[in-house]
Amino acid sequence: MMNPKALHKISYGLYVVSAHRDGAINGQIVNTVFQITSKPATLAVSINKDNYTHEFIKGGRSFLVNVLDEETAMSFIGRFGFRCGRDIEKFDGIEYRISSLGNPILEEHSIAFLEATVDKIIDMGSHTVFIGEVVDGDITGDGEPMTYAFYHLVKQGKSPKAAPTYIEE
Amino acid sequence: MMNPKALHKISYGLYVVSAHRDGAINGQIVNTVFQITSKPATLAVSINKDNYTHEFIKGGRSFLVNVLDEETAMSFIGRFGFRCGRDIEKFDGIEYRISSLGNPILEEHSIAFLEATVDKIIDMGSHTVFIGEVVDGDITGDGEPMTYAFYHLVKQGKSPKAAPTYIEE
Repeated sequence: MMNPKALHKISYGLYVVSAHRDGAINGQIVNTVFQITSKPATLAVSINKDNYTHEFIKGGRSFLVNVLDEETAMSFIGRFGFRCGRDIEKFDGIEYRISSLGNPILEEHSIAFLEATVDKIIDMGSHTVFIGEVVDGDITGDGEPMTYAFYHLVKQGKSPKAAPTYIEE
Repeated sequence: MMNPKALHKISYGLYVVSAHRDGAINGQIVNTVFQITSKPATLAVSINKDNYTHEFIKGGRSFLVNVLDEETAMSFIGRFGFRCGRDIEKFDGIEYRISSLGNPILEEHSIAFLEATVDKIIDMGSHTVFIGEVVDGDITGDGEPMTYAFYHLVKQGKSPKAAPTYIEE
């Protein structure tokens, strides 16, 4: 018997993962990002298949991880975490630039970005793990990275149902 | 051009991942653990192929993630992170019990554990990503989970060369 509270003890950061497809862009909040190897640097990210960004990553074959600053406002997180790109243009009114691969790099609330091509797609039922080599990345701010624990404890944030780490209360 | 410092902005926890094979047990420090799906709960972990624990996870087809407490002594982390199970019995003198699958559950310095069977093995060159369903897990202490940032900043800890997140200084 598994006590689901044990899953809460895994530590994560908080990111806006962005992607592009056919000239359109989208992005969403993700906590499940990790580095797999250092030479070459590769990243893995777990995305719910129902999320609009999933279609973009699969279509554009790349993704970009924007590392959120601890100071990021809840309204900003809500826009990328609880609204769907099918209903709103996520990047409308947001400061960003487009990477050489075509993905949005946040120019507000973000302290670093990492861009990866998609080299492996792992089907995990409700979610897909996208794995790829890091092709670009830089430091873009000097704040502290927001952790998932900080988001929950200090910001009193919630998890959407589609998150890998969602647990019914 | 990728600035490798951007990789440092990804947040992680700090864990002892343990495993068994042919009646023997082993374990090592890992920071790269994340949950992939919630129904069923699945976990991914990235392990260097040169690490002794890699052979145990592959052989025993399961792994157990022990979540370290923020108070964990550096000597304890050093034992599991910078010594090899080919040279020492990692669990000698350590308080632990054996799970129903045969993996060591720490009974000191740990606040939770999660045990998973290995359902998918992803070859990533220097490292392997083991993916599996969580079959057991519980809260075992009431401290705060140690984060990788806390380990580096407060504990002034280093990364071994085999770590997914190792960067040459």
